[in-house]
Amino acid sequence: MILRELKPLDFLKPEELETIHQAVLTILGKAGVEFHSQEARDILKKAGARVEGEKVFFPPELVMEQVALAPSEFTLHARNPENNVVIGGDYTVYAPGYGSPYVMDYVQNKRRNATYEDYIAFTKLAGSSENFDVVGGVLVEPNDIPDNLRHAKMLHASVKYTDKCLMGSAMGAKKAQESLEMAGIVFGGIDRVRKNPALISLINTNSPLKFDPRMLGAMMVYARNNQPVIIAALAMTGTTSAVTLAGSLIQQSAEILAGIVFAQLVNPGTPVVFGSASSIVDLRTGSLAIGSPESVKMFSVIAQLARHYGVPSRGGGSLTDALIPDSQSGYESMMVLMNTVLSGTNFVLHAAGLLENYMTMSYEKFINDDEMLGMIRNFSGRFPVDDDALALDTMFRVVEGGNFIADEHTFKHMKDMRNPIVSSRQNYASATELTDTAQRAHEYCKQVLRDFQRPPFDEKTEAELNKYIEGLG
Amino acid sequence: MILRELKPLDFLKPEELETIHQAVLTILGKAGVEFHSQEARDILKKAGARVEGEKVFFPPELVMEQVALAPSEFTLHARNPENNVVIGGDYTVYAPGYGSPYVMDYVQNKRRNATYEDYIAFTKLAGSSENFDVVGGVLVEPNDIPDNLRHAKMLHASVKYTDKCLMGSAMGAKKAQESLEMAGIVFGGIDRVRKNPALISLINTNSPLKFDPRMLGAMMVYARNNQPVIIAALAMTGTTSAVTLAGSLIQQSAEILAGIVFAQLVNPGTPVVFGSASSIVDLRTGSLAIGSPESVKMFSVIAQLARHYGVPSRGGGSLTDALIPDSQSGYESMMVLMNTVLSGTNFVLHAAGLLENYMTMSYEKFINDDEMLGMIRNFSGRFPVDDDALALDTMFRVVEGGNFIADEHTFKHMKDMRNPIVSSRQNYASATELTDTAQRAHEYCKQVLRDFQRPPFDEKTEAELNKYIEGLG
Repeated sequence: MILRELKPLDFLKPEELETIHQAVLTILGKAGVEFHSQEARDILKKAGARVEGEKVFFPPELVMEQVALAPSEFTLHARNPENNVVIGGDYTVYAPGYGSPYVMDYVQNKRRNATYEDYIAFTKLAGSSENFDVVGGVLVEPNDIPDNLRHAKMLHASVKYTDKCLMGSAMGAKKAQESLEMAGIVFGGIDRVRKNPALISLINTNSPLKFDPRMLGAMMVYARNNQPVIIAALAMTGTTSAVTLAGSLIQQSAEILAGIVFAQLVNPGTPVVFGSASSIVDLRTGSLAIGSPESVKMFSVIAQLARHYGVPSRGGGSLTDALIPDSQSGYESMMVLMNTVLSGTNFVLHAAGLLENYMTMSYEKFINDDEMLGMIRNFSGRFPVDDDALALDTMFRVVEGGNFIADEHTFKHMKDMRNPIVSSRQNYASATELTDTAQRAHEYCKQVLRDFQRPPFDEKTEAELNKYIEGLG
Repeated sequence: MILRELKPLDFLKPEELETIHQAVLTILGKAGVEFHSQEARDILKKAGARVEGEKVFFPPELVMEQVALAPSEFTLHARNPENNVVIGGDYTVYAPGYGSPYVMDYVQNKRRNATYEDYIAFTKLAGSSENFDVVGGVLVEPNDIPDNLRHAKMLHASVKYTDKCLMGSAMGAKKAQESLEMAGIVFGGIDRVRKNPALISLINTNSPLKFDPRMLGAMMVYARNNQPVIIAALAMTGTTSAVTLAGSLIQQSAEILAGIVFAQLVNPGTPVVFGSASSIVDLRTGSLAIGSPESVKMFSVIAQLARHYGVPSRGGGSLTDALIPDSQSGYESMMVLMNTVLSGTNFVLHAAGLLENYMTMSYEKFINDDEMLGMIRNFSGRFPVDDDALALDTMFRVVEGGNFIADEHTFKHMKDMRNPIVSSRQNYASATELTDTAQRAHEYCKQVLRDFQRPPFDEKTEAELNKYIEGLG
């Protein structure tokens, strides 16, 4: 995780924030949110919400009172405690791309279906880089694994090849329960997992203003077991939300708050994250435009709203609409990711690998994004302004006839600067060939996978986990 | 120019800023700055600075008193008054790359010497895009024009092909005087140019702590005629300044302030800009690393220091160490440019076209950067949060059975979103081929140059200008 030392960028003025907040309460109270689960509606009704058919209307007091129960930050536990992370406050935590059905083959320059082998490879890449905190999500959709086993095989790979924090399946109550049981095996019992949350999950709303039964089922399992849930809207302007940014933001916020209130009613104090993967739509083509400045503004405001409600935020990522890892892929991803971090976002899913909005993962893009994460990590930290860093004595030595390059101060600090992993600092005259950065990323990626070594894992636990997964098949 | 609506990012804490300021005064008072011009030293001595040989030592009171005379913002005038710009305050003004001796040939994938034809072509590109405010600098070095005419031919092309703001030559007093006389012809007399400044020039320091006679000569001509000067340090960490960011920054600031004080002594109230093109050096290779996060931090602090001293700032740009317009070129340029703007920089030289740090201009990179400038322009502005934008009535229509895509509110606002110029928003399935963004930029650039039309220019003035330039040859 990175500790952001700069004050977060506030996109909305205070009075605009209040206007947005009031409009959100109006939607929650008067337009209502559909909960496609009888059990969920019963819980909400009992707490004082008005229920009409599948629609739930939230009184403002209920919203504010329940949101106040959610923690402003919490710790997510990894099987290696050195990899625990704090979600909230001035911290930003990264997880790789999530949910792509496709992989871009760099050599063939073709898109193909993702497989479990890809899932494992991306897990190894994320495990090897210091920039990733959370693995175990749907890094890619392993299309070659039967649906009833996918969640288990994904979690299995994450535990086997890394010792970082994990994500759980949001695909209904059964898979959530199974994810939890696997975590129980890894962490020494479900009770310990309840005490030290170890699975964060992504609960998506169904815009406009709906929660489907699958997501609600998973959310109830996780909330009852004190596991953190990211409640995230996926609104698309002009199609599943209003075409304007303000209109889209109030709808997204209403959906997210409805989910947060529900999680608190299931289990007061459930750790939640205020999240968004929403985007503008280019209405000329009907395509998402997640690499657009307007989408970035929405992510920025989501982080500001989360601060307003006192909960951690999720949004942004290394996002682009480019189809290949070219300059557009670079400038769009950097724009989104840099502002995601400068806006104070706490949990950044999709931090590496995605091309073609959320559709395709690319190994080369993953490495390029890993480079960007390192750059932003460096940029997010201040630099020393003390006597040693000011180096006035060095300056006086130079003025009196010395030179910087040979000065002891230069030797002492010459390794302070960050070294890139694939970015070039050659000049033209000394470059033997003009390689594309994607090509260098391709080679680098192969080397990381070749050199990969698993972190230590207790044999007995691993055997027990294997047995559990076999039992599911 | 763009109006930044977000509060600038402050990298230094107030107490760090004060520490830096005190160290700068120490350098100015005790290490001194060399002024390689007798005339300049006489002016400084007369004002109360201590002079020893070529070295000038500045008492703190002299520094603060003179800096206070510099305007916090000023207007730069264009021959088309609609293109006038404000330099300072919440405005950011863009000028293209400056000073590259080379051009990257995209088709041949080779670097070659820049020519006057390139200069004209880049002038047309900058003239055609709404994102550029200032032309007439050394867009590329026209190696095929004799040195004694280059400045005049460059200014000529800028006036002929655009009606935007102009830069003057900093290559000594004679060329500065000739630039001024040309501006006099264009603007109806030197007196009018004095009253309405029309030439901004780039005065570079010679790190560590020197001003050469050529730059001082030009500065004196411009200051005496009330033309704005950017005083810019070009420190390279570990070679021409301390290896640490703080150490490099105090030296840069001392150099810049020395120049600003001198400009005010030549002519109190001369418009000045506090500038930097400094960079860290990768000491493993000896190369500049202008696309590094550390270099961005320095640019950010330069903008903050300029605010502290109450003068406009210059720094950053679309900067990269990449040799070709690939993903690195995209992510580095976006990182630098985005933070240049978010840090509140007022004048952004090198806003488009550069590859290989400051060495090479690229047509394709220029178009990619133009795209980025448009994205950042959009991102820098807030969005409406009023009843129309909140669109609660649309939301209620949808909840009652309507849909967003067919709603009148969507039709009304569907054109509000920014359209990219070369970025792709196609999805893989509908893309007939996977083109690189640089390839699309190549085609786009050819089209802009093909369609280019000169803005109107008074025939008599043009004839007079032509005659003046012929007279120089």
